[in-house]
Parts: sequence; structure tokens; C-alpha cells
Amino acid sequence: MRATRLSDCVFKPASVALVGASGDPNKTTARPFQFLQKHGFQGRIHVVNPRQKEVFGHPTVPSIEDLPETPDHAYILLNTDGAMEAARYCAERGVPVVSILASGFSESGAEGLAREQELRALVRETGTRIIGPNCLGVVNTHNGMSLTANAAFFEPRLDPGRFMLVSQSGSMLGSLLSRAQDRGLGFSRIVSVGNEVDMDIGTLSMGSVDDPEVEGFLLFLETIRHAESLTQFAAAAHAAGKPVLAYKLGRSSEGQELAVSHTGAMLSDDNVADTFLRDNGVARVTHLESLFESAPLFAGWSKAPRRRGTVGVVTTTGGGAAMVVDQLGVEGISVVGPTEGTLSKLAEAGLEVGPGRIIDLTLAGANYDAMTAALKVLRNAQEFDVLIVVIGSSARTMPQQTIQPILDGEDNGKPLAAFVVPEAPHALRLMADAGIPAFRTPEACADAVGAFLDVRAPRLPARTVNRYEGARNSLSEKAAMDLFASLGVPATQSLELAVTAAVPENLPFPYPVVAKALSDELSHKTEAGGVVLNIEGPEELRAAIENISLNVRERAGIDVEQVLIAPQVKGMADLLLGYADDPQVGPVVILSQGGVLAELSKERIIRLAPVDEATALEMIDSLTIAPTLKGYRGGAPADIKALVRTIIAFSRIAEHPKRAILEAEINPLSIQAEGAGVIPLDALAVLASDR
Amino acid sequence: MRATRLSDCVFKPASVALVGASGDPNKTTARPFQFLQKHGFQGRIHVVNPRQKEVFGHPTVPSIEDLPETPDHAYILLNTDGAMEAARYCAERGVPVVSILASGFSESGAEGLAREQELRALVRETGTRIIGPNCLGVVNTHNGMSLTANAAFFEPRLDPGRFMLVSQSGSMLGSLLSRAQDRGLGFSRIVSVGNEVDMDIGTLSMGSVDDPEVEGFLLFLETIRHAESLTQFAAAAHAAGKPVLAYKLGRSSEGQELAVSHTGAMLSDDNVADTFLRDNGVARVTHLESLFESAPLFAGWSKAPRRRGTVGVVTTTGGGAAMVVDQLGVEGISVVGPTEGTLSKLAEAGLEVGPGRIIDLTLAGANYDAMTAALKVLRNAQEFDVLIVVIGSSARTMPQQTIQPILDGEDNGKPLAAFVVPEAPHALRLMADAGIPAFRTPEACADAVGAFLDVRAPRLPARTVNRYEGARNSLSEKAAMDLFASLGVPATQSLELAVTAAVPENLPFPYPVVAKALSDELSHKTEAGGVVLNIEGPEELRAAIENISLNVRERAGIDVEQVLIAPQVKGMADLLLGYADDPQVGPVVILSQGGVLAELSKERIIRLAPVDEATALEMIDSLTIAPTLKGYRGGAPADIKALVRTIIAFSRIAEHPKRAILEAEINPLSIQAEGAGVIPLDALAVLASDR
Repeated sequence: MRATRLSDCVFKPASVALVGASGDPNKTTARPFQFLQKHGFQGRIHVVNPRQKEVFGHPTVPSIEDLPETPDHAYILLNTDGAMEAARYCAERGVPVVSILASGFSESGAEGLAREQELRALVRETGTRIIGPNCLGVVNTHNGMSLTANAAFFEPRLDPGRFMLVSQSGSMLGSLLSRAQDRGLGFSRIVSVGNEVDMDIGTLSMGSVDDPEVEGFLLFLETIRHAESLTQFAAAAHAAGKPVLAYKLGRSSEGQELAVSHTGAMLSDDNVADTFLRDNGVARVTHLESLFESAPLFAGWSKAPRRRGTVGVVTTTGGGAAMVVDQLGVEGISVVGPTEGTLSKLAEAGLEVGPGRIIDLTLAGANYDAMTAALKVLRNAQEFDVLIVVIGSSARTMPQQTIQPILDGEDNGKPLAAFVVPEAPHALRLMADAGIPAFRTPEACADAVGAFLDVRAPRLPARTVNRYEGARNSLSEKAAMDLFASLGVPATQSLELAVTAAVPENLPFPYPVVAKALSDELSHKTEAGGVVLNIEGPEELRAAIENISLNVRERAGIDVEQVLIAPQVKGMADLLLGYADDPQVGPVVILSQGGVLAELSKERIIRLAPVDEATALEMIDSLTIAPTLKGYRGGAPADIKALVRTIIAFSRIAEHPKRAILEAEINPLSIQAEGAGVIPLDALAVLASDR
Repeated sequence: MRATRLSDCVFKPASVALVGASGDPNKTTARPFQFLQKHGFQGRIHVVNPRQKEVFGHPTVPSIEDLPETPDHAYILLNTDGAMEAARYCAERGVPVVSILASGFSESGAEGLAREQELRALVRETGTRIIGPNCLGVVNTHNGMSLTANAAFFEPRLDPGRFMLVSQSGSMLGSLLSRAQDRGLGFSRIVSVGNEVDMDIGTLSMGSVDDPEVEGFLLFLETIRHAESLTQFAAAAHAAGKPVLAYKLGRSSEGQELAVSHTGAMLSDDNVADTFLRDNGVARVTHLESLFESAPLFAGWSKAPRRRGTVGVVTTTGGGAAMVVDQLGVEGISVVGPTEGTLSKLAEAGLEVGPGRIIDLTLAGANYDAMTAALKVLRNAQEFDVLIVVIGSSARTMPQQTIQPILDGEDNGKPLAAFVVPEAPHALRLMADAGIPAFRTPEACADAVGAFLDVRAPRLPARTVNRYEGARNSLSEKAAMDLFASLGVPATQSLELAVTAAVPENLPFPYPVVAKALSDELSHKTEAGGVVLNIEGPEELRAAIENISLNVRERAGIDVEQVLIAPQVKGMADLLLGYADDPQVGPVVILSQGGVLAELSKERIIRLAPVDEATALEMIDSLTIAPTLKGYRGGAPADIKALVRTIIAFSRIAEHPKRAILEAEINPLSIQAEGAGVIPLDALAVLASDR
């Protein structure tokens, strides 16, 4: 019997080959055989080792050609060169899936990159699929298929959990496994994807979307690679009602500290990754343990819609609940109190609760009957989309009183998260065994609930990522403005003037005006003295043009030939509207404060492009200064409709057939009063030269 | 023998009385006796119980008068009324310290408040000192003095730790104890301060500042009460080289959501509390477990100075270290790499480390010799003020290889924090026993290191908190401006004009000007249509005054009698400079963005007032827009010197002898170019009416 589906070859192979497995128990390469035996793998195991006749009493064959059958899945444990050779032999032999442990690939310079290209060619030419290299393991805890070299699998027993763990970091597999197992939370599948030369996170996960043993996905990410594949997987997982959670490194980065003035550079990897995850419906947590603690909370995620401001908290201890409420508040999530109706039902059930939004059972007593009655009422209270249950010292000293009611209550689909205030491993274990989401710390609990409330359906289909690496061509301000106008962005009145030309007696617009150097080469006009504002008449304009010419020559060494004259505009606010065709995730549109604040303020509202009206509005609402645009404190509102139209039009750069526009920016975009539109005051675009 | 010092009566009493202790083991009031016996208290125990002749075989006396001696410390376990009566008897008997368990005091309305006043009177009149009410316990783990009703003390053994835990939440005592003890981290003293009617956190902690068994203080705070006493204690603790750490609830609050335009209201309790803690040299952590996990890190805190940008990271696992580095980055702390000199020394020691700022020992190997050699070099590397050691899977599987070197290395005073990536309770325990700071999660580790780097020496002596509750009197803009000018804040040219008066042909300053309604009653001029900007000449001014008069009458129902005319000023930035005499912590000065952004931006730079030049400069530097004030991207710098002088002058409102100024605000304060000063454009002051 052989596995026929690719995903079965990965996780449910009828036979595996360990290529280069050692019989010396001190060696890393001896581990996979030991783990397969220890965890009860029932498939056939073949060991390829030309130097040892047997390992751990199991006979070996000297080469891949000598294998008695073509295995469904081979794990190559040899060093870099040996692994390359073995991969070729496996492909020749027609092995459907090959996982490679060795390092020495793209992480080690040009030579390693060439090796990866060779592996990709092998995949293309033979159809053999590769996991890794740098793959520390592929594990199915439901059938003992422990194809891994990670020492953590010496654990006496693997809990057969419900979620699949996929990690870009091989070493984190063991740490996550030990932490989760200690809590009685296992993983159904565990994969170290390594360098992702072929089977990437999306592909490997996609293969398990329809597997009933996999109820959701936990991703440990270092970066976003292969965005198309991830997008397709996220959409499929969502359609199947299986949640995807991610912990991603790189929330801070040196890149962010070194922000410069162009949209592309303003976007750190993490800004973009965060947008990508959110717009693909992936829930991002920021606390390590939330990643696996949250799984049971999300397991029921499709059962109920979630609205913000719908978190209820019931507790046996005011102080303990306050920590969670406080932490939620820091994340912008308010807890809501019970309605009058719910209060009446609690009273009818004989429960005395304190005043305030937290439902405090201190007076009712930390006992089985009170907790049972309270949970029955609250699980049916419509005002709560999520219920947080905070249990104090009784979680440690008498879990039968306050934990048991959580286990015994009827699960009506209302998402529920428990936080135990004392050290209470037994209580945590009871809840883990019952599939109740339970959290060790108030921080992780709030993190998880926040992520749970924030997650949305995937927003856009997979887009091809634009991996343009050719020459780039910056447009002048005028050319960029014209390009944007052709897309439906409002045009600005302006006049190009040669620096040597006479200033016309009458401009096509009234004074005051601004004059700006117009040059493809000059990217920082202001610093170079290439901008003069508030020009009141022809005399001043003449002087301004002369100054610009002198300044730019002196400071930037550039001979300015033309200047751009435009009306001096004052609006209600200056914003930045940017676009970047990100090489990791594809087109994104960005909105932030404009002018110098674009760089100083860390606030960047980013969405995958293009955006629709609802998303554009939501972007505007996310700005700190949004209230000033909507008529703050009796003031006049700004032209939000025009801003929405402009954001949408700008974001459609993403649909440009050749994807020739790599980067675009309007900064400042002056927002006028209602009815008066928005006016781009400066523009910039970077094109792919050869498209 | 009797204890003579107050702090000895609290923690080292020769005799204690349990008033109202029950012999029924199911009752809470039976616990203190059981705990005293269980944990080996060697002092004399007296039980007062008129209804039981003995409890747990121990003879009782029927009343406080019948006690064979005056106990050093009485713990009253009776209900509210009984407790009041017993407190009076104890005071008559001359008991030096009385702790009260009962609730039913200020937390329960007017009657409870009256009871607290009665207790305070008792203290004043008799000299008996009171802890509580709502005091859940006073414990000395070094002598078994477990005067507590908290069930957590049923633990078989109390670890005699080195830090004193002081909590405003009684219930959190048990949770913190269980969590810390599970890690092998105990507390030397544990106190539930309850309602703090007499002995507050400052007083109770002050009594242990010179106790060699107390090496530092951990505060679990719900709010700041008794700021004077806390300030004195914090200064004394600092002088004694004993760190004070705090976890405080209320980082988010509904108050913050409801910000209105006045400085007082813009300050949430937590804004002020945070300022208070920082300016008093208290390190604030935001993760619950950091509170006790951090203690060993701070234990050596006075040994070395700390600079930002001096955190070194050494690791056996890149992925694990990245999580801590990432989290530190989120908190604005960059990790620094080894110098060339340090790299040479590592190479000399035969250690191959990867490139980059993290010192990765993966290639050198996760073994005893490599870790020992690396730590020896790094502990002596001058570029690191703090060293974070991240240990991967070996922490769980072979702590003798990578944890033991941390324990064996020579402690040269360099602060060191360890994070173990897998679940590794044994490793954590080994380090706890050796006094090495070790963290369970990357988040808590980064939190602790951040707090460690941020903590500063206390800045100001204790100030009396101004508990003015009388009538308040708002000054008109002009009067407020004059008041501020008298303090040294730059004056603004302006002219008061009766609305009925003729507009003079020549103003004392040129047009354009602004006109504003001048009225003590009108607090939101703009919303009421009471402000007109950009008035270009006498004609427009006349119309503006008329409009203001009509608008304010119509919208606010106020008859404006006077308007204020001032030059229209445009500056480089608008800031808000505020002052509040906070009823919790005393005078604070606040700097933030001005105008409408004062409310929308959450950025508030707050310091205890008055401030000196260095602090004023540091406040300015903390603003997001600081770079624009300093000459950003070739632009002209603003008049920072004038701003510094103005902040200092404004903050000296705190030194006003009568403390009559309760609240003051300049918004906007227009910051002009270098040399051109700062110009207050609107002002507000609230005075105590009867001072």
C-alpha cells in the first residue's frame, strides 16, 4: 500500500526512508529512527546507511537504489553535499516527498543559493516535492510519524492535539512543544518548513485544510515568504471554518528606525506583514504562549459573529479580573457590563453581584452552584460575544468548586476564555482536556481575546507578487501628478516654467503661489532649498525662481531647468497617501499624517490594495486625527467623500496591467472642507524602467 | 520580652493576639492560628474568644482585657461592628499595632467612611497604629509570623525570600505567593495594606528599609494613595540601595476615553501615577509575573550604572533570542552588538559566533565550556550594562551544560537576566535558588529589562498633596495670561475691548489679528463661535465682534461684555503646556501637542513639578514632533531655549506659597523660530476661591 495524495505522503506515509540515519544514539541523525519507534509509527521504516549494516537492530540498505520499495516520504539526514546527492537519487527513484535536514543553503551565501536553485530545478523536472532544507521535522502526532531530529521529541508521549503547528524556526518547535505539552495542549501536526524552497507554509498547510484531524493552524513566522500560496491557504482555511493564528517575529526592526521619506522605505517589513496577515484573515498574537493557549478559543470561531465592545467578564476575584480588563483596555477593547435583563436573571438565580461592568461573584460565593448558575445566565446573554471567566485562589485550592462548572456547563457556542489568577496547573490541565481556552497570564488572555475580536474574513484573492528587480525610473512631480490624474486622482492646477523664461504677467490662478524645483534627479526638494512658499506677486516669483536655481545647484549639485508653479493651498489637514508594490506581499496602500509628520508619527494605516469604499472609510477612521476631519468640536467637516474616492482611485494602481508602477506617493494631500475636494500638493512615482 | 520598635511590633512581635479566632477549621477566622503554628511562629500566641474555651487545643481568654499581657500585635478577625469595638479595647489596652480583617469601611459608603474616621481618631488619640481594615494579612516568612486569613498560606512551606511584597489587593497576595513559590521565589515579608486608614504602603515599607532581611520592595498597586509617605519611603529605599518595583492596575481607564479640554481632565489617574512612580525612582513593570521575576535583577541594581543601548544578548538559539530582542524593540530598546575587542576575546576563547548583534553560540555549541567561556568574556565587556542570556532546548534537556555555567560564573556585579525558551521548570528553579534573575516568557523578560534600564533616582522631595475641596474660580483668558506673565511666562500683546465700544483706528499691533470672547463663564470659546481668526482690518474687526456677541448669546446663552484682540500669530508648532495640582500626587506639569491634537493625540509628557532645565529639555525631547523643533531636514530650529524657560517658569506654579492655583493651561503655546521666543495664544487658570 502506498499513499497517493501528496498530503498523505507528507503526514500519513505508508513507508518512510531515513537517509543517512546513524545507529549511534549520541548523534542527532540517530533521533528520527528512535522517535518513530518511540511514538509508535506503524508504517514501514527503511534506513539507508552504507557504513552500518543495522541501526538499533533494524537492517539497513546501502543506497537509495537498494531500497526494497519507493518510500512515500524520505528524510535526508546527510550533510549539505550528501543531501544534494541523496535528493537527486530520491527524485530519480520517484520518491514523492523528500524532507532535508541539512543547512548550508540560501542562509550561507551564493553557493548555498545555487544549491537551492538546483533543488528547485529538481522539483520542476521530476515532480518530487521537497520540504526544507533546514527542515528540523515533519510530525503527525496521531500516527506517531515523528520524522524529526529535534531533541524535544524524546518526550515520553506526544499529545495528539487539534491544531497544526507550522514554524519557520526549527528550534522553536521543541520549545513550543514542551510548553504546550506541559499544559496538556498538543499539536496534531508539527512542521518545520526550513528554507521553503518548494513546499512552503501555504502549500503544506493547504494540504491539511480538509483533514479532520486538523482543526486549525498555528504559524510561527520570522517573515512572510510566498505570499500567493499563503493567501490561497488562508482563504481555503477560512472557507473550511478553520482558524489560522500567527506569532510573527520582527514587530520592531532597525528598518523602522531608519525611515526615510518614500513610502516604500516608510513601510517596515512588519507593517506590511501585519497588513497582509489581517487582510488575509489571520489572527496575530503578540505573546508567545498565546499562540497555543488561544487555539481552543479560535476552534469555535466560526460559530458566532464577534463585535467589538462585547466582552463580558465574570470573576470570583475583583483584583484578578481587573488585570485582564486593564490589559484589554491597553489594546483598545472595552469590557461591557450586563444589561438590566441579565442582571435580573442573575438576581432570579439568587446571585448577588457587585456594581460595575465586571460581574463579580465574590458576594455570591466561589462555589459550584453560584458559578454554574452564573455561567448559565451569561452564556445566554446576547450582549456578550465573548465571555472571560476569571477564577481566583479557588482555581488552585478547590477546582471542583469553580473550574468544574466551566467544564460541566452546556457549550452553546458562546466563545469563552478562562484566566486563572494563582499558579493552578491542575485547573489549567482540566480545562485543556475539556477543550476550554485557559490562560496562564492576564497578558496572554487579553492578547488572545483581542486577536479573536479583531480577526476578519480574508479580503482579497491572491495576487501575484511583483518581483521586479530591474532598473527604476523616478517621475518628476509634474509627470507623477499627470499619471495620478489619469487614474482618477484630482488634478492640481500648475504651470511649468523654464528657469530662464520670463515670469508671465498673469498666471492661470491667483497669488499666493508656491514655486518648486522640477527635476527627476532631485528627491529632497525642501532640503535642497528647492521650494519657496507664499509668493505674493510676479516680483517675488522671479526672485524665488532665482533662489531655487542657486540653492539646488549649491546644495545638491543639480542644475534645475524647470520650476513648477502652483496655487498656495491651505486645507484642513495634510495627509500622505502612498502606494507600494511590496516585494513580499504585493500592492499595499498607505494613509498617514502628511508633511514632516509622515515620518515622525509612527501611525501608518495600511491595507492590501486595491481597497473598496468600506475599507477606505475604515482607513480614514483609523487615523488619530479622524475626528478633526469629521467636524470636531463644532468645526466644519472635511471632504471625506473626495478623500474616499481618491484613496480608492490611488489604490487601483494595483490593477495596472503591467504592474509598472512600483511606488507612488502624494504628500501632502491637502484635505479641503466638505464639497471642496482634496488637492495633491506634491507627488512622486517610481516606475519599472523596462515595462 | 516585648518588641519596642514599631516595625518589630508589625513583623517581629514577641506576642500576638488573635481576636475572634475560631476553632472551627472550616472558618476563615480559624486560619491565622493554624498558619502561625504551621509555619513555626516562635512568639507567644493569645486567642481572644468569649464563646470557645480553647481553639485547636490552645486555651483562649474571653476578652482583650483578660489577656495576660499586652500583645505587640493584635489581628482582629471579627465582623465590622465587632472589629470597631475590639479596636477600641486594643487601643485602651495599649496594643501598639492592630491589624483589622473586616470589610465594611470606605468601600461601603457613608457609614463606612465614618467608621474609618473613627479609627483615625483612635490612632490620633491613643497612639495605637492600625493596618487595614480589609487587611488580609501581615506575614514574615523568616520567623513564621503568618498573621493572615488568606487560604494560600495553607502551602506546606513558605520560602523565605528577599523582597517584601506589599499589596493593595488582598486577594492577589495568594495568587502572587503561589506563582512565586512555584518558581522557588519567596517573599521576606508580605502585607495586605487594605484601606490604609493609618499605616499606609509608605509607612509600612519605610519600617523595613533598614531591615537586612528585606532587600527590596514589590508593590501591587490599584491606585496611588498617601503620596507623601510613598515619596519619603521611595527616597529612603533609594538611599539604602533597595529597589522598589511596582505593578499598577489602571493603565487604561474609562477616564482616559472621556478626555475633555482641560489639563486636569486630560490626565488620567494612570498618567499621573506613572509620572509619580518614575519621578520617585520606582520601577514599573506591566506584566504580572515580572513583578516577582524581576526582583533578583533589581537586587543588584545599585552596583552598576545603566545606560540605554547597552543591552547585550548571548544565546544558544537564534529564534529564542529574537523574541526577546523583538519585544525589547517594541519598548524602544535596541540591543547592542559586541565591540571588535569583545569579538577578539571570544575568538581567543575559541568561540565561533555568528554575525550580527546577537551573540549566537549555536556554532560554538550549547555546552558547559562554551557557555562558561562566553559568559566570562561578556561579563567583563564594557559595552554591556545588562546581559540577557537566552537558553534554548538544553535548558530543559541538559541544564548542567548551559544553565550551570550561569550559576558557576563569577558574579562581577554585571546585571544579567536569563530567559529559557522551552518549558524548563528545573532550570528556572536552579537559577532562582542561585539568585539569578530568570524569566519564563520573552515578554516578561523584556518588560523587566526595560523597567531596569528606565528607572532613575528619585527627583523631588515629598510635597504636601493639596486636598482642596472648596469652590473653584476660573480666570478669564486675560487674567490667566497676566497671572502667568507674573510667573515669568512670556506675555502676549493684547487689547481688551468692550463689545459696545468703538473699534480704534490704530491698534497697538498690526493686522491680521484675532478676536475672542472674554468671559469667566465661557470655557469652550471655539464651539460657541466666540473666536474669529485672520481679521485683516478695522471693518472686519467690527463685524467679528458683532458676530462673537451674537454667536455666544445664541449658542452658550452668555452675554459677552468684552472681547480680547491679539495679533494673529503663526509659529513652527503649537504645544499645550499644562499644570495640575493633582489630588493624588501633587503638582504636575504636562507638555503635549496643542490645539485640537491636544485631545486626539494620546501623547502626554508629564513630570512632577517643578522641573529643572534638564527635565524640561528631556520633556521636549520626548515629544514625537521634537525633531521638527530642532531643525528637521534642513529646516530652521525653533526657540527651544525660550520653551525650556517657559516650562520651568510654568512648573514653578507648584511653589506658589498658598497653592491657590489648582489648574493652569496654555493652549496653544506657539513656538517661534530660534530667537523669536514662544507666544501663549490662549490661557486658562482655575484657582481655589478661598485662598
